[in-house]
Amino acid sequence: MEKIGSQTIKFNNPPTILSTASIVGPKEAEGPLAKYFDQCLDDEFWGEDSWEKAESKIIKETVNTAISKSGIPSEQIDYCFSGDLLNQCISSSFGLRELNIPYFGIFGACSTFVEGLILASILIDGNAGQFVLSSASSHFCSAEKQFRFPLELGNQRPPSAQWTVTGAGACILAKDGPGPYITHVTPGKIVDKGIKDSNNMGAAMAPAALDTLITHFQDTGRDPSYYDAIITGDLGYIGKEILTELSGSRGFNIKDNYNDCGVLIFNKEAQDVHSGGSGCGCCASVFSGYLFNQLKSQAYKKILLIATGALTNATTAQQGESIPGIAHAISIEL
Amino acid sequence: MEKIGSQTIKFNNPPTILSTASIVGPKEAEGPLAKYFDQCLDDEFWGEDSWEKAESKIIKETVNTAISKSGIPSEQIDYCFSGDLLNQCISSSFGLRELNIPYFGIFGACSTFVEGLILASILIDGNAGQFVLSSASSHFCSAEKQFRFPLELGNQRPPSAQWTVTGAGACILAKDGPGPYITHVTPGKIVDKGIKDSNNMGAAMAPAALDTLITHFQDTGRDPSYYDAIITGDLGYIGKEILTELSGSRGFNIKDNYNDCGVLIFNKEAQDVHSGGSGCGCCASVFSGYLFNQLKSQAYKKILLIATGALTNATTAQQGESIPGIAHAISIEL
Repeated sequence: MEKIGSQTIKFNNPPTILSTASIVGPKEAEGPLAKYFDQCLDDEFWGEDSWEKAESKIIKETVNTAISKSGIPSEQIDYCFSGDLLNQCISSSFGLRELNIPYFGIFGACSTFVEGLILASILIDGNAGQFVLSSASSHFCSAEKQFRFPLELGNQRPPSAQWTVTGAGACILAKDGPGPYITHVTPGKIVDKGIKDSNNMGAAMAPAALDTLITHFQDTGRDPSYYDAIITGDLGYIGKEILTELSGSRGFNIKDNYNDCGVLIFNKEAQDVHSGGSGCGCCASVFSGYLFNQLKSQAYKKILLIATGALTNATTAQQGESIPGIAHAISIEL
Repeated sequence: MEKIGSQTIKFNNPPTILSTASIVGPKEAEGPLAKYFDQCLDDEFWGEDSWEKAESKIIKETVNTAISKSGIPSEQIDYCFSGDLLNQCISSSFGLRELNIPYFGIFGACSTFVEGLILASILIDGNAGQFVLSSASSHFCSAEKQFRFPLELGNQRPPSAQWTVTGAGACILAKDGPGPYITHVTPGKIVDKGIKDSNNMGAAMAPAALDTLITHFQDTGRDPSYYDAIITGDLGYIGKEILTELSGSRGFNIKDNYNDCGVLIFNKEAQDVHSGGSGCGCCASVFSGYLFNQLKSQAYKKILLIATGALTNATTAQQGESIPGIAHAISIEL
């Protein structure tokens, strides 16, 4: 690999995405992408006695499905990356504790899925392994309980709020294979523009997405028209609008080929999700389900996937802090 | 780089540890390693109005000190890794939000510091960058508040409990330099032997340390006598005793050259720390302060550093779960 421009890495032997898997909750099952997921659950507990245990089960079974679909015995998978939104990333560590694969825990809030794909790609192109797994999850109920209010309170959410996706996505990357390939990655910087409204994550994360988007174009010499689709995860409706406008004002017109995982996963009017979906599991499941399908069917041949994260917690919000954002980008091409 | 054995990576051009820095709190300043730290604080707040903000300031200033000591302008540092114990790793993201270096958030509980060094080494040997920064922190007060009881309660701690270190450590790794070099890394698997006592983390993490230790020796063909020092971080007194015994029973005698960061950082009798120190900042500050000094002075020429983490949180403990452990090892040689 080599570094090009200020922060992009170009792979000499781009890793193949060998297989993906996704499992989502009942609300996601009612959305427009339902048919692309490997499994849709009937309820948020999946037979467990807590939401946290349910989330661990979701990531565990998603990873097992991705391994099974890859045809690679799990003993041959060299390393794995995983992360989630729960305190100390417990969905991942409990969900994957029986996996018996050397494990790197990562945290990038909703950018976690792409952060994992970046690091997995670096390991593979660097010759540290043949097969590397990456996964991420979130769960509406465990996230609401942890970050906001008890669900039983029936608290009203403002129109700018996003709905945390219950779901997980997982990918197996391989050194050799038929593609789609991860050709370039642009890890992002932390950007904090002073937004303090934790019910408006899209606005807090859009400046980070802009920074990574423009840096990616500058580093690679590409422009927005190079890609069949530019997909953020998860700015939601408000963040998508902000990014589209800011990007245009900087000379990068993304109006024609840009969408957001949080916009794609739910039917806004019918599902009452306000500004759209969010959570590590949103980008992870939309990519592993819908977008990977579009790549395999060649409906899309070149995608820029930019996952965005709000690096905040309940304590920092109470202490009056603003919300630092981050965005990591990967270029996926056939 | 190349993978050797089942899970170790051997670097072809081992990265140099160019500089390190460490800042610790007032209790650590009374311990036997005080003279090796760059700065010892007079109190746990350091002029901030919360422990969380103090921890962010500690990691920020530690990173700035490491950069300053390296002589490398921060614009030339390609990427950074950081993590901590606070929910959603906020010490790192708030502490480093003005750093303007592409950022990877990581979470491995008290193994975080070595996890970061492993990933930073892979980036450098893989040619993704010339200079990569890695840091980790913890804070006694913010950790107690979050994981256990309000400090104001004056809760008694059992003898098996460890004392979370207030402190941070940071390293700048470089592609070229005079050493010490990171020559091999052995990322660990999650190991859960069913220990449920969150006041006995040493016992929970020792099996993971054993797994990584033995795997490292098997993968490299080395034995314990190859190293001048084998250092875990942070099993404390109880975990150290368990690891020594388990390791011996498996044919690897580490009695003569093994110690633990949690044992080294405090004076057990005088400082009332029960089973010793813990926290991401323990291994990070002991390595960045004391051990790096021993390497530079050639008192040690070959170190195996094994950082251990308990991948648990307050909710899993309440839900009756056991404590999954992990341990990551790096071989540092002149």
